[in-house]
Amino acid sequence: MQPDDEQLMLLALEEAKAAMEDGEVPIGAVVLFGGDVIARSHNARERLRNPVAHAEILALEMAAHHLGGWRLGGSTLVVTLEPCAMCAGALVSARVDRVVFGAVDPKAGACGTLYNLCSDPRLNHEVAVTPGVLGGACGELLRSFFARRRTGTEDEIA
Amino acid sequence: MQPDDEQLMLLALEEAKAAMEDGEVPIGAVVLFGGDVIARSHNARERLRNPVAHAEILALEMAAHHLGGWRLGGSTLVVTLEPCAMCAGALVSARVDRVVFGAVDPKAGACGTLYNLCSDPRLNHEVAVTPGVLGGACGELLRSFFARRRTGTEDEIA
Repeated sequence: MQPDDEQLMLLALEEAKAAMEDGEVPIGAVVLFGGDVIARSHNARERLRNPVAHAEILALEMAAHHLGGWRLGGSTLVVTLEPCAMCAGALVSARVDRVVFGAVDPKAGACGTLYNLCSDPRLNHEVAVTPGVLGGACGELLRSFFARRRTGTEDEIA
Repeated sequence: MQPDDEQLMLLALEEAKAAMEDGEVPIGAVVLFGGDVIARSHNARERLRNPVAHAEILALEMAAHHLGGWRLGGSTLVVTLEPCAMCAGALVSARVDRVVFGAVDPKAGACGTLYNLCSDPRLNHEVAVTPGVLGGACGELLRSFFARRRTGTEDEIA
């Protein structure tokens, strides 16, 4: 049976916790295609020293590698935090069908908060957006991370 | 002597031509830091089978590798086509100082055309934008590519 959005978000939360154990901002993502989870990853910007190594970007790359091409039509990406502009643009670029996110990002969210890059008819693809799945748990993980990391600021999410 | 914007755009155009030789949409980019070109790359989405392998993303990754960290403050990215939302978001995410682009992209441009993600005071970083450097030559290369590739459409830029 195909996993539902909450089950997928629980996997994404596991990834987010793995990011936190690495000292990274705790954000995790998974990609569903054909009923299977074909990619799971977490934010690794510090470890990889790579400005684009957000959870979503790494998950899209893993999914494309799995499928053997850059077009990810038919897939759903599930992520613990509302994607930023870079990641929302990447979902459009990859022709992802649907994005499911947990916590809203009031500072950088680009799937309904500051922008909705996924639903712009001027662009050549639109991505359906399902917000707020296990949003409380996803947001609480981020808040506890920043509360513990006294030197950090929420700016580092973006 | 530090190369000026046109000299850098000529390097980016060389990269774009290398992309065309590979059968890729011809877009090239370079990154300047401390007076030196520390990264040069071109669109490789087909070859790498990677939805995020736009010229700008690859150049940012190369620059971060060169500098040993994801924060690219002090750097300028020069690219032949106006960045899309993904790439403009990546410039913000990487804390790039300035972006210089050649041709305007009426279908997906996110540095002044459809959006200006580089100049949004709500985000945690702004990137200065210099548009239209050698824009004619940059646009002509794209038009000739799509004219020759009868089966392609300009949608594939984004």
